This record gives sequence, structure tokens and C-alpha cells, in this order.
Amino acid sequence: MPIARLTDAELDAALAELPRWSLRADGLALEADLKFADFNAAFGFMTRVAIYAEKADHHPEWFNVYNTVRVTLTTHDADGLSQRDVAMARFIEGVV
Amino acid sequence: MPIARLTDAELDAALAELPRWSLRADGLALEADLKFADFNAAFGFMTRVAIYAEKADHHPEWFNVYNTVRVTLTTHDADGLSQRDVAMARFIEGVV
Repeated sequence: MPIARLTDAELDAALAELPRWSLRADGLALEADLKFADFNAAFGFMTRVAIYAEKADHHPEWFNVYNTVRVTLTTHDADGLSQRDVAMARFIEGVV
Repeated sequence: MPIARLTDAELDAALAELPRWSLRADGLALEADLKFADFNAAFGFMTRVAIYAEKADHHPEWFNVYNTVRVTLTTHDADGLSQRDVAMARFIEGVV
């Protein structure tokens, strides 16, 4: 069963709530660049998100180099953004 | 102290030894696309490499989405490839 895409109003509310996150140019993903003290801290963060991702059955796309992590959130089953992405962004804000 | 770059002969030997890896277009990095059974396996692999990276004080650049990991190895202190990258690629071949 496809997952519902965010409405424009839901997307606006999510972006207002999540100032660190921006909409990808194509409008289909949320992106954030996160910076940590060092690689240990960056990978520790990734580990917390990985455990969340498995529990939620929703996984990030991410790029890491040393103390930085670029996270991209999208929902393939929705061909765009869904509440799963908002929930993951909120989780990330709680542990970053 | 800068780290020695691989000579052409050393680079040729490394590429011959590491068939999964290719030279980035600019010649300054090794790249490999790795595929795993699922996210759990992919992130488990990343965790093993992360622990190695901290011990070796040499860190990968990598992109993960679900069961795939794209790894890029380069040595910033060498402005290109060094034996540290070859050692990390060898480690990865042992756990992939």
C-alpha cells in the first residue's frame, strides 16, 4: 500500500518545525548537514539513527566524511516526503 | 609531516590486487560500490570499518542508502592516495 505524501500544509509545518532541514531542489526530500566534534561522535550519531531506522523500517540516505554527516530523507513508497521522514527528522533533532 | 603518495608502480599493484576498486576520474581516490543483504548487514559492515578507521586514524568517505555503501578512500595529508588507503581497502576486502 502506498504511503501518503505530505500535503503542502503539512510540508510547510514540518519545515517551520525543523529549521535545520531544507527541501531538496526537486521537492522530494529533506536534507540536513550535521557537524560533530569528531568521527567518533559522528558515527555514534549514525549508530543511534541506524537503530531507529531499523525499528521504524525507514532508512536514511547519508554521506559521512570525518565529523560531518549529510542526511537525506525521502519515502520511496510515497514518491516523495511522508510523515515517516518528519518523524525521522524529529528523532535526529533529539539526538544530534 | 606529509604522507608519501603512492608511486605509479605502487598504484598499479594496488589496483591489480583490489579488483573491486577503481580509481576516481581525478586519480586521487579509490572507489568501490558494495552491496549487502540488507541495511543491518550494510551498517554492520560500516561499524567494523569505523572501528578500524579510528584505530588507524584514517577515515573513509562513504555514502549509504539501505543495503549499499559507496566507499571513497583518499589521504588528505598526501593530496592523493597513500598506503593508508591500500591498507583500508585490504581491511574492507577482509570483512565485506
